[in-house]
Amino acid sequence: MRKLAFRHGTPLYVYDGNLIVERCRQFKKAFDGYPAKVRFCYAVKANTNLAILTLIRKQGYGADVVSGGELDAALKAGFAPDGIIYTSNSKTEGEIKAAVKAGIKITADNLADISLVKSAGGRKIAFRVNPDVEANTHPKISTALRDSKFGLHFQDDMAFKAVKKAIDAGLSPSGIHCHIGSNIKDSGAFTEAAEKMMAFAKKLKDELDVKLSFIDLGGGLGVQYKDEKTLAPEEFSAASKKVVSDGIKKLGYAPEIWFEPGRFIVAEAGVVLAKVNSVKETPAKKFANVDCGFNTLIRPAMYDAYHKVRVLGKKGESETYNIAGNLCESGDILAKERALPRIERGDIIVIQNAGAYGFSMASNYNSQPLPAEALVRGGRAMIIRERQNIKDLYLRQKSPSGL
Amino acid sequence: MRKLAFRHGTPLYVYDGNLIVERCRQFKKAFDGYPAKVRFCYAVKANTNLAILTLIRKQGYGADVVSGGELDAALKAGFAPDGIIYTSNSKTEGEIKAAVKAGIKITADNLADISLVKSAGGRKIAFRVNPDVEANTHPKISTALRDSKFGLHFQDDMAFKAVKKAIDAGLSPSGIHCHIGSNIKDSGAFTEAAEKMMAFAKKLKDELDVKLSFIDLGGGLGVQYKDEKTLAPEEFSAASKKVVSDGIKKLGYAPEIWFEPGRFIVAEAGVVLAKVNSVKETPAKKFANVDCGFNTLIRPAMYDAYHKVRVLGKKGESETYNIAGNLCESGDILAKERALPRIERGDIIVIQNAGAYGFSMASNYNSQPLPAEALVRGGRAMIIRERQNIKDLYLRQKSPSGL
Repeated sequence: MRKLAFRHGTPLYVYDGNLIVERCRQFKKAFDGYPAKVRFCYAVKANTNLAILTLIRKQGYGADVVSGGELDAALKAGFAPDGIIYTSNSKTEGEIKAAVKAGIKITADNLADISLVKSAGGRKIAFRVNPDVEANTHPKISTALRDSKFGLHFQDDMAFKAVKKAIDAGLSPSGIHCHIGSNIKDSGAFTEAAEKMMAFAKKLKDELDVKLSFIDLGGGLGVQYKDEKTLAPEEFSAASKKVVSDGIKKLGYAPEIWFEPGRFIVAEAGVVLAKVNSVKETPAKKFANVDCGFNTLIRPAMYDAYHKVRVLGKKGESETYNIAGNLCESGDILAKERALPRIERGDIIVIQNAGAYGFSMASNYNSQPLPAEALVRGGRAMIIRERQNIKDLYLRQKSPSGL
Repeated sequence: MRKLAFRHGTPLYVYDGNLIVERCRQFKKAFDGYPAKVRFCYAVKANTNLAILTLIRKQGYGADVVSGGELDAALKAGFAPDGIIYTSNSKTEGEIKAAVKAGIKITADNLADISLVKSAGGRKIAFRVNPDVEANTHPKISTALRDSKFGLHFQDDMAFKAVKKAIDAGLSPSGIHCHIGSNIKDSGAFTEAAEKMMAFAKKLKDELDVKLSFIDLGGGLGVQYKDEKTLAPEEFSAASKKVVSDGIKKLGYAPEIWFEPGRFIVAEAGVVLAKVNSVKETPAKKFANVDCGFNTLIRPAMYDAYHKVRVLGKKGESETYNIAGNLCESGDILAKERALPRIERGDIIVIQNAGAYGFSMASNYNSQPLPAEALVRGGRAMIIRERQNIKDLYLRQKSPSGL
């Protein structure tokens, strides 16, 4: 780590490729003996680096994408179109055309999507539904509540009517999809969602004679950031096992069951290395000021997220520090009131569990160039994204005359 | 507007250059008759586009920068080094060297900064102090509370000792600086801060024989986002007038008084144009799904900020909509429960007051390319930043073999 920070500078994202592979295998393994054929689509938005995508694809995963940009990245990383699913509440005509052209799965989130898929020449369509399940996570990332912007509600038969409309338009319903939120700790929510999904598939079979090729139960498996209870992949898998088994019997046919792990695969494999520029003791607090801020890792500032931190090469808990980012906002504190060894200028702070929603949410705020990313795999460290430089910030700017 | 959206696509930032110039003049004019020589340094972080910077520089403004990147941009936009002030709680050695080399004003936020300015060959130094003033704004952007990471506290003589240390190191104290927060509505906080600053200048004169060339009272003047009370520039100016007048008499010399407006200059001059991809009515809410999200404008999702919205070319308030962003997060709602005319697919939503902390906080989250920026000046529309394309997202990525 120290060598990486020294050679490539800070702030630096470092990913443990072996751990990513391990998490891919572990998640898959949890579905041994699952009562249906399963498929795993990695949620690309968690970490979109092409090298990471390629690594995950090689573990037999498909991809869950949410935009034309993510679709492009998934194709570039070699994912087979058949294993790519595109879900978004708001798709442009261009994005839908690209998705139809690529031959991937597209979920309709509203009636306009159905018309657009049809007019783009699509023949199949899937449906994102909103099962109205209380997922008990941070409100900003709980996605299947009644008030959410996502999905076609079961209430008022909204989802059913959408499937009917698609059939009337000559499209063939290929699957249904739900995703109840991110970083969920309660397996009951997954069971409830699976029940509603299997019941909906049954209704489609009974009333519209629809046989789905897949039912996507989404992602949402969390990781431990602090000391909170987390679900093991086996518990996640078990949450829907009986429901799916019973459901398939009632259905009389066996759709594939899909899952979309994201955070679980990459979160723990990533760290941010940040260098301490200065240490300041105020009458109220002690700050270690580092060389990145919420431009690099927005989760603490945006979601009040907790990330464990340590001081590279040092041990102990003799002092209490706030790890302050370098942005000009008071809210830019990466870690609050942490017991750490004595910190000096030049020390490297390791911000843990930063592999998911870290770089993918990074920005140039305060005119800070984007950090570099390194991947360690089989003992070898590779730079998978070079650091931006200040000149990059002007790349697309034009200087008009006559101001 | 419609022509701009059609020609350059959406999402698109559009700035009214005439209004920026008008705000620059209005702010300056509010200081006519101020009892000291004043200087205005635009807070670059609010909007960092080089064309905007150039426009503001031409109105006789200096620049307040918070990073090496912003310093580079300010120099590129032609600001004279003498009118650039660099303030940050966490500066790298490289940033301090660049600032010393450029000959700009540097504020020390901690003791390490003093040593670094000295070893980089600097001869003068200013000091950011923390006056511990309750500014009554959003906690994330209130910067001078006792708990804040910013500034050298007056308490325990921390600020005084820092000035002494700088003098002992052979540096000449050039100024003192405070900034109590952003978007402040209460003039009393400015008065209180000015009082504390003038008293500190007096103490430095009396006890260390220091004559400052400037006292920077920071920025913080807000704009009206919804229907909240705002301060007029005249009230902002009046808040410190008497204090400064009395203070100068007591000092026996007249330092320049500096101010750092940012939001006030650019916020109201900017809008985001976003196109409606689809309209969805759920049992709970009505959504207009647009083609941008908090990747483009993070203020609603991050600070619960309110931005007025309107539908281009339509009038009325017959329906209630949520303007939903296109990101895969439930929190990605740009405007909640707004009375608007009936919205259809293809309509253009105008998100107002987006000129400050809009593009400068934008990101590529969900693999969304950064939007374009247009500046309208004297009836002429100019593209001042081209839209990113998806290929740009791969620019610095490297694809290693052997994954």
